[in-house]
Amino acid sequence: MKNLIVASTSTVHGSSYLEYILPTLTDFFKEASTILFIPYARASGKPYDEYTAIARKAFAKIDKKVIGIHEFDNPKEAVQQAEAIFTGGGNTFELVNQLYQNDIIPDLIATIENGTPYLGTSAGSNICGVTMMNTNDMPIVYPPSFKTLGLIPFNINAHYLDPNPDSTHMGETREMRIKEFHVFNETPVLGLREGSWLEVKEDSIMLRGNHSARLFQQNKEAIELEKETKIHQYFK
Amino acid sequence: MKNLIVASTSTVHGSSYLEYILPTLTDFFKEASTILFIPYARASGKPYDEYTAIARKAFAKIDKKVIGIHEFDNPKEAVQQAEAIFTGGGNTFELVNQLYQNDIIPDLIATIENGTPYLGTSAGSNICGVTMMNTNDMPIVYPPSFKTLGLIPFNINAHYLDPNPDSTHMGETREMRIKEFHVFNETPVLGLREGSWLEVKEDSIMLRGNHSARLFQQNKEAIELEKETKIHQYFK
Repeated sequence: MKNLIVASTSTVHGSSYLEYILPTLTDFFKEASTILFIPYARASGKPYDEYTAIARKAFAKIDKKVIGIHEFDNPKEAVQQAEAIFTGGGNTFELVNQLYQNDIIPDLIATIENGTPYLGTSAGSNICGVTMMNTNDMPIVYPPSFKTLGLIPFNINAHYLDPNPDSTHMGETREMRIKEFHVFNETPVLGLREGSWLEVKEDSIMLRGNHSARLFQQNKEAIELEKETKIHQYFK
Repeated sequence: MKNLIVASTSTVHGSSYLEYILPTLTDFFKEASTILFIPYARASGKPYDEYTAIARKAFAKIDKKVIGIHEFDNPKEAVQQAEAIFTGGGNTFELVNQLYQNDIIPDLIATIENGTPYLGTSAGSNICGVTMMNTNDMPIVYPPSFKTLGLIPFNINAHYLDPNPDSTHMGETREMRIKEFHVFNETPVLGLREGSWLEVKEDSIMLRGNHSARLFQQNKEAIELEKETKIHQYFK
């Protein structure tokens, strides 16, 4: 049975890495003693070891060990044999590029479909969608495809931001960008605000955390979904 | 002799389309009676005709005719025979995708190298760089490559925004994104604020408009370049 937490962000303002969601993760990862960390998104360009150390420090607080996927000779086997998996944020283009370079996409899908608990934050959540086409990141590398894991029937826009009514900036708002996406694509998009996450248990998808989320569908007005909404009801 | 205006934005807050730069364009396009408009970036997802009408209306104020490239049977010939060219903003991924689909990249390079005046705004400016890798846009389509026209020896970050010191948002700032780019790439990046443009005359590149610009180079601290700086001196 699929069992995922798909979080907008690793960190909310004014608190430490993963702090806001650690109580939830204690229960979520209760069957696992070691978590496989995928640092491929290289938040702020960090080397894998340095990024893994940050995840390791956070999970030590709930008595979990963390091993980076780069510490294994065979990343496909690392995924296949993982007790639990966490993909951190950073640059989604580089994350997806590395998922393809290391050929672990089929292994991630199979392992997660088979029930291995998966936590994604930010870029690590974007890849749970059908494509990475609603990332906010800069295209700093050219991945072989934008197709991602497709573990949920829509795309994620992480760190969703409402338009600032006082802004004099002429660049597009987040909502405008997602509307442009729907000129070319049918896949629905969920704008997930920082501090929100999806709890995915097989076909059930619940919105958790303290915020509503914004659902964008092609040729429809965007709608606000209150916290604790059963998101899956919109994808029957 | 290359002759380009590479502008951060088509529109500054509180004024109409191209209004802030029309006096400059009167002189820039003085030898041309008709401007070829490339609407491929489809600002806000607009159909080509609708987008072209907006450019046409603005240029009518300085007595220029505008024809959209989609009105020609052969877009390559349209570029080759143009008196002047303007590529408008919108989504850079879709713009680059269409440049490749219509196979006009070699024609644009040759025509512009040969002296046909070229105006770019936003996405239309991003493509003047070496790659489109510093766009702010969402990857709503998958272009065959991120390589662009290479008419200037660096990349453009249009609509450059300084970090907001009061923000509680945890998504990356523009500067952080460009620093991540330099983990993987050597190409320098110029952050061009709204209301600024580059005036490119063969090997001379001048910063025009009312703002300083921010130059990012690999393994160096970012530097502010005052308005009227000779940008080319940084690329000897």
